[in-house]
Amino acid sequence: MATLTGTPVVPGIAYGPVLVARTDVSPDAIAAYDGSDLTEPQALERYDEVAGKVADGFAAKAAAASGAAAEVLTASAGLARDKGLRGAVAKQLKAGDDLLASVQAAVESFVTIFTGMGGLMAERVTDLRDIERRMVARLVGEPEPGVPVPEEPSVLVAADLAPADTAGLDPSVVLALVTERGGPTSHTAIIARQLGIPCVVGTAGALELETGGTVLVDGTSGVVEVDPDPEESQRRVAADAEERAALASWSGPGATADGKPVRVLANVADGESARSAAGQAPVEGVGLFRTELSFLGRKDEPSVDDQAAIYSEVLEAFKGAGPGDRERYVVIRTLDAGSDKPLAFANMLDEENPALGVRGLRLSFDNPGLLDRQLDAIAAAARATGTETWVMAPMVATVAEAEAFGQEVRDRGLKAGVMIEVPSAALLAHRMLEVVDFLSIGTNDLTQYTMAADRMATDLAHLTDAWQPAVLQLIAITAEAGRQAGKSVGVCGEAAADPLLACALVGMGITSLSMAAAAVRPVGAQLGRVTFDQCEDAAEAALAAHDPMAAREAVRAVLQP
Amino acid sequence: MATLTGTPVVPGIAYGPVLVARTDVSPDAIAAYDGSDLTEPQALERYDEVAGKVADGFAAKAAAASGAAAEVLTASAGLARDKGLRGAVAKQLKAGDDLLASVQAAVESFVTIFTGMGGLMAERVTDLRDIERRMVARLVGEPEPGVPVPEEPSVLVAADLAPADTAGLDPSVVLALVTERGGPTSHTAIIARQLGIPCVVGTAGALELETGGTVLVDGTSGVVEVDPDPEESQRRVAADAEERAALASWSGPGATADGKPVRVLANVADGESARSAAGQAPVEGVGLFRTELSFLGRKDEPSVDDQAAIYSEVLEAFKGAGPGDRERYVVIRTLDAGSDKPLAFANMLDEENPALGVRGLRLSFDNPGLLDRQLDAIAAAARATGTETWVMAPMVATVAEAEAFGQEVRDRGLKAGVMIEVPSAALLAHRMLEVVDFLSIGTNDLTQYTMAADRMATDLAHLTDAWQPAVLQLIAITAEAGRQAGKSVGVCGEAAADPLLACALVGMGITSLSMAAAAVRPVGAQLGRVTFDQCEDAAEAALAAHDPMAAREAVRAVLQP
Repeated sequence: MATLTGTPVVPGIAYGPVLVARTDVSPDAIAAYDGSDLTEPQALERYDEVAGKVADGFAAKAAAASGAAAEVLTASAGLARDKGLRGAVAKQLKAGDDLLASVQAAVESFVTIFTGMGGLMAERVTDLRDIERRMVARLVGEPEPGVPVPEEPSVLVAADLAPADTAGLDPSVVLALVTERGGPTSHTAIIARQLGIPCVVGTAGALELETGGTVLVDGTSGVVEVDPDPEESQRRVAADAEERAALASWSGPGATADGKPVRVLANVADGESARSAAGQAPVEGVGLFRTELSFLGRKDEPSVDDQAAIYSEVLEAFKGAGPGDRERYVVIRTLDAGSDKPLAFANMLDEENPALGVRGLRLSFDNPGLLDRQLDAIAAAARATGTETWVMAPMVATVAEAEAFGQEVRDRGLKAGVMIEVPSAALLAHRMLEVVDFLSIGTNDLTQYTMAADRMATDLAHLTDAWQPAVLQLIAITAEAGRQAGKSVGVCGEAAADPLLACALVGMGITSLSMAAAAVRPVGAQLGRVTFDQCEDAAEAALAAHDPMAAREAVRAVLQP
Repeated sequence: MATLTGTPVVPGIAYGPVLVARTDVSPDAIAAYDGSDLTEPQALERYDEVAGKVADGFAAKAAAASGAAAEVLTASAGLARDKGLRGAVAKQLKAGDDLLASVQAAVESFVTIFTGMGGLMAERVTDLRDIERRMVARLVGEPEPGVPVPEEPSVLVAADLAPADTAGLDPSVVLALVTERGGPTSHTAIIARQLGIPCVVGTAGALELETGGTVLVDGTSGVVEVDPDPEESQRRVAADAEERAALASWSGPGATADGKPVRVLANVADGESARSAAGQAPVEGVGLFRTELSFLGRKDEPSVDDQAAIYSEVLEAFKGAGPGDRERYVVIRTLDAGSDKPLAFANMLDEENPALGVRGLRLSFDNPGLLDRQLDAIAAAARATGTETWVMAPMVATVAEAEAFGQEVRDRGLKAGVMIEVPSAALLAHRMLEVVDFLSIGTNDLTQYTMAADRMATDLAHLTDAWQPAVLQLIAITAEAGRQAGKSVGVCGEAAADPLLACALVGMGITSLSMAAAAVRPVGAQLGRVTFDQCEDAAEAALAAHDPMAAREAVRAVLQP
């Protein structure tokens, strides 16, 4: 029996038929394309027809989806019908290119323009590429590539999945996701975590699996067994279902089996997601409120009153006491724009390496008013709701930055902290805690910088893994600084949503874990089954391991003996 | 008396009249441009005229320069006359743009194309922008912007200097460089270091200095005094000249005053620069031989024999014993392409953040033959010349990478090491030394990743400074690992060329310093004046400081009391 191994990102066992999604247009069909018989007006007419069909397809999917997924799809429909894009195609046609080349060049120029605005949201580029792929497929006479709707519950296998591919995914017919590329922070992983579907990414050989064969996917170990024994497989699925049912009954508050409290928190983006998190899971507050979603896509900066209203919605959702009668609180992160999240009204530069550029707190170096107004709005919302409010800054690299920010926040009567996502900040954690009240580790960016590997680069996914020994070391240094200072140090990256890693983090001295609401119960339940001593042993085992795979194994051996 | 303060990058005192170089075309002239009276063929004719003049200007400067400077200028002349660029302009004109807009769009598309090849050499983009600026100046009827030739010895003040601006600089009439932007790793700093001219970069307010006023520039403290007392200034210049004369007589070998040996080495790129370094300064070998210059700009990979011949030239220059009869050696770094150094024949991707992408050793993940052939060539060159040869890999992030590389190198009978430039590698230095023989810290990249700040981003120059406490911490961790393992740990970034920092590095346990040949004597002389105890005190003082400025001051207080 053959097995494939990848990076496990969402735990759980699934068994079922394979459905391979082809997301590329056949190169042969592209090579065979001949657009020379179309005049310039005919070509443009054909473009309108193709763009309209692609847009209609997105609109139809949007109608069937809801929430953020529907928004992404509606935006893609708009982008496919965009007049600027059409204009760029027309210009290329005029310059003598054929229609296929014109579409490719127009999309290319759009990618450049967006990038030139200061680095494009990774999702937007992916969307643009997805639109291009669909248009090209129609031009060369192929069906639009993408994820088929399974006729029976299946394990979906793909190279990697784009936001548009996953927006309409129905968890009732998708048993698990297995991708050949991508890492723990890839879009596929994030979606799988939200949907609670077992998921293994970066699985070498996955695309050689054949539709119709069967696989057993273990989202905890990362092992994909090909054509496994059906009886044994059914048994493991049943055991896993039992296990999941046990998790689902976890009701907080966060603590180890021997009663060491750990604050289990949710990551939210606005009032709607805050109310949904508060209703859906036994969380004790918010560990990361990403305020940039209130700014992105706006031409002008929202007024202080508008901002205060948006922030109040989130604070309102966590008023008063939570599970175990613990006082709830909300950690607000100030604007983290720049890099992959450009802002129309703040000056963005054309950066060679946007992830190493003017982003996060650095935007306020040249524009301090932006931060002042946001802090005023946060203070107003805190007063209006009475919810305990902490405020932290993203992309802090030096103690001087932390000190200046901390002063601004404390002047407004709020608790001040900084994100630890730049290696420098982790190394200086003890000095940071001399000037602020708390720290929060953003493991995704911390990993990216520590490993010098772009978290979006699928070729480097094996490096961008929070289980990498150097990343664990920086987390441990930061946690230890908190322990010595008697101050709170949380984790709000994807690492907090990994039940095994979460326990190791607690063993290092991490005091709060913030994650997507869907991950709260598995993490809380795992924590509730182990003692703090076990967590400390897990931390030690993780730190001693030589690579991510060994670290996972060592921690599993300690926690699930 | 007013003073300005910037980042000191080349020590020395200079006093003289200010000459401000304007490097921009006036925005008013650009706004007033009207190209509507030119027909398409007329506009193209005008373009040829302007491009020809700009190219001639570069060619004339190239004729007056030599070495690398002449090469850069000749390349710029060629780029200004490039047929592809002309074609892009013609295409824009055809699409209805005026000539000014066409030139801008064509340059833009070239920037995109080069970037699309995998991230462009920063110098190439700067060159392209320089060509654009000169063409635009001529189109709007202004003189080409740039650095004027001083009529009397002057302190040159500018926003920042491009390679073409500095290529023809005559150190006999330029007393010092002061720039408003840039950091210790900027092009301005690198050129000043090569020419041995005192230099202060990132000096707020520098552009408000007026041509004709006088300044006293202190390249050690970073202070620029405006209209200082002439007598006191002359006295300080004279004292500095005496000091420099003392430095010039340093003849090696590298050691502290009390005899602790430190290998003082040169950074080289080819046979010519190796011979020049060996003749120019009392160096004990090469600490960084950048082999990529043999690969860049070639369509095909050089054969093993061709490579061996190139490497032999460098090894040949350092045969036998050096100063103090110490055996000399050469550290060869394997191909560090990718990011800002794209390679035509290796697969490069269109990366969002090339500095966090597939570069250095990572290129061999998908193309192991490239590394194998290079190592074969190095081994052949080592055998042919008999020079002691060490080999190291760039961009190593994990112990597994170091182990695999070390095995390949040792199988060929050579000493194996890795560059420490990714924070992960520094944190894991002790484990790295279990699998390789030596480490070499590349402080420029290590600083960039540790601070999550692009070393080329002038807005973030205050962060990309090797004196940042977190960077010093990682260097100290790496040096300590070497001390414990009894293995050699060198520094080969710009930090090694800073005499004060160099002493602190030695105090941390660094065993070799590799730098531009011009920096060898000042560094060697400074080292020879202090005891190893003082170096250890300097290291401690640097590590305890809260920011780069405080660290510099603290180290100066220890070493130059």
